[in-house]
Amino acid sequence: MFRERLAQDAASIQAHFNTVLSDFADLPVAQAMRYATAGGKRLRGFLVLESARLHGIAEDRAIWPATAIEALHAYSLVHDDLPCMDDDDLRRGRPTVHVKWDEATAVLAGDALQALAFELATHPDCGPDAVRADLSLSLAQASGARGMVLGQALDIAAETADQPLTLAQITALQDGKTGALFEWSACAGARLAQADPAPLRQYAQALGLAFQIADDILDEEGDAAKAGKRLRKDAEAGKATFVSLLGLEGAKSRAATLVDDACAALEPYGAAAQCLREAARFVISRES
Amino acid sequence: MFRERLAQDAASIQAHFNTVLSDFADLPVAQAMRYATAGGKRLRGFLVLESARLHGIAEDRAIWPATAIEALHAYSLVHDDLPCMDDDDLRRGRPTVHVKWDEATAVLAGDALQALAFELATHPDCGPDAVRADLSLSLAQASGARGMVLGQALDIAAETADQPLTLAQITALQDGKTGALFEWSACAGARLAQADPAPLRQYAQALGLAFQIADDILDEEGDAAKAGKRLRKDAEAGKATFVSLLGLEGAKSRAATLVDDACAALEPYGAAAQCLREAARFVISRES
Repeated sequence: MFRERLAQDAASIQAHFNTVLSDFADLPVAQAMRYATAGGKRLRGFLVLESARLHGIAEDRAIWPATAIEALHAYSLVHDDLPCMDDDDLRRGRPTVHVKWDEATAVLAGDALQALAFELATHPDCGPDAVRADLSLSLAQASGARGMVLGQALDIAAETADQPLTLAQITALQDGKTGALFEWSACAGARLAQADPAPLRQYAQALGLAFQIADDILDEEGDAAKAGKRLRKDAEAGKATFVSLLGLEGAKSRAATLVDDACAALEPYGAAAQCLREAARFVISRES
Repeated sequence: MFRERLAQDAASIQAHFNTVLSDFADLPVAQAMRYATAGGKRLRGFLVLESARLHGIAEDRAIWPATAIEALHAYSLVHDDLPCMDDDDLRRGRPTVHVKWDEATAVLAGDALQALAFELATHPDCGPDAVRADLSLSLAQASGARGMVLGQALDIAAETADQPLTLAQITALQDGKTGALFEWSACAGARLAQADPAPLRQYAQALGLAFQIADDILDEEGDAAKAGKRLRKDAEAGKATFVSLLGLEGAKSRAATLVDDACAALEPYGAAAQCLREAARFVISRES
């Protein structure tokens, strides 16, 4: 069930991007925005749409925050790939934005995608004004210097640190870098319904960490062709990862426990949350 | 009257930044955010606060969007100064962020300042939910690929164009690059009061263009020490400016006419808009 829904949701999000991005002037920055928002797993957007379904929210409302979080995620990847950041040439099997265009276009396209995320999250079709304001404020908090950017800054600090990070430090780093956007995505359905997001927050925290541990495992034993990006960068750079700290088997076992925790957090929703449980199991079995 | 209010408002905005930025983790990215938001004319923030006063909105509500627009403006300067963009070493008489720290910190600090702008513009103290949602949506539209980023993208395209830009093209470029944020700032008071922003929009459009013409005049005959940044860059690069297209006297006369237009647009507000009229005259007489 999960894989079919993920594929359907990815298609809905892509169609929404096509509509939303069609009326931008045809400059390299707009071309780069379209390029950077094409493809990807759409896991964050799926979490928005699925948590919305769990709360009886129609897709024509939920598609706005779902597309918003994918725009925000896309901006973060475009800037992360820049030469002064992770310096990556390849993303989803294609040249990164600054390779295909240039660095200035990558900076601007990322900036415009961040603005677009807030434009979509406050679109009148999201619902009542209270919901729009709540979606926007929480997205700003999740993506800024207390959330995603904090995680990225801790990641950069780790590169020049004397000692490799401890497990607690890596966990804090990933909470920001990956966790904050997962959390926002999973809670979005509750926000749209003005319901309590607490169980979904707990689910997303465990899911986000499991996702990141799985990323480290993939980085260690994955196939670059399937992953569509360069692997084993962290190990080569001597950076601490969940795998270097827990060992390959220890990391796999920790990820599996987190998936159990994520599923347990969904108990209040009963059988209706089955697809979210499958999503949790998916994040530790994926090949890209 | 205008200069006293501008100074007072600049102090209020700085104090608000000090509070808002004090609880970020003490990493280079947060230090760079504080550095990039210190100083400057605060003209955009003043326009928010003054248009709010015009509508009887208390400063403890208006300070949020006033600080938001200054955070957004600061992000745009940090990214504009990057080596791949304008490659500037000096801003407000001090080293730019990527010179004082590094490029990665400048990218991240700019990204976090953009998120902060939306966090501030949707803060519950701004007022009713409808106002918060409206401020956020309009800020996203003004700053994204149909507004400020569009202007920046047109600016980059102009650098490699075969022909220097025409007056209509430069005007369109500046409408985005400078005009969109001025317009948002001047309309913010009306948005806070849920009143019609049309006269303020007309005022800001004329003001923004006058501001940019004044910038080109300053670039031509200004003093780099007073301006706190490198001058005569556009002329050296052979780029068309309002001065190259209209001549120095023609540009001054066009700017003066625009200031008259800006003042005329304020007619519905009568004497209460006196300070905004003085602001319009200020933008074409400034030395930095």
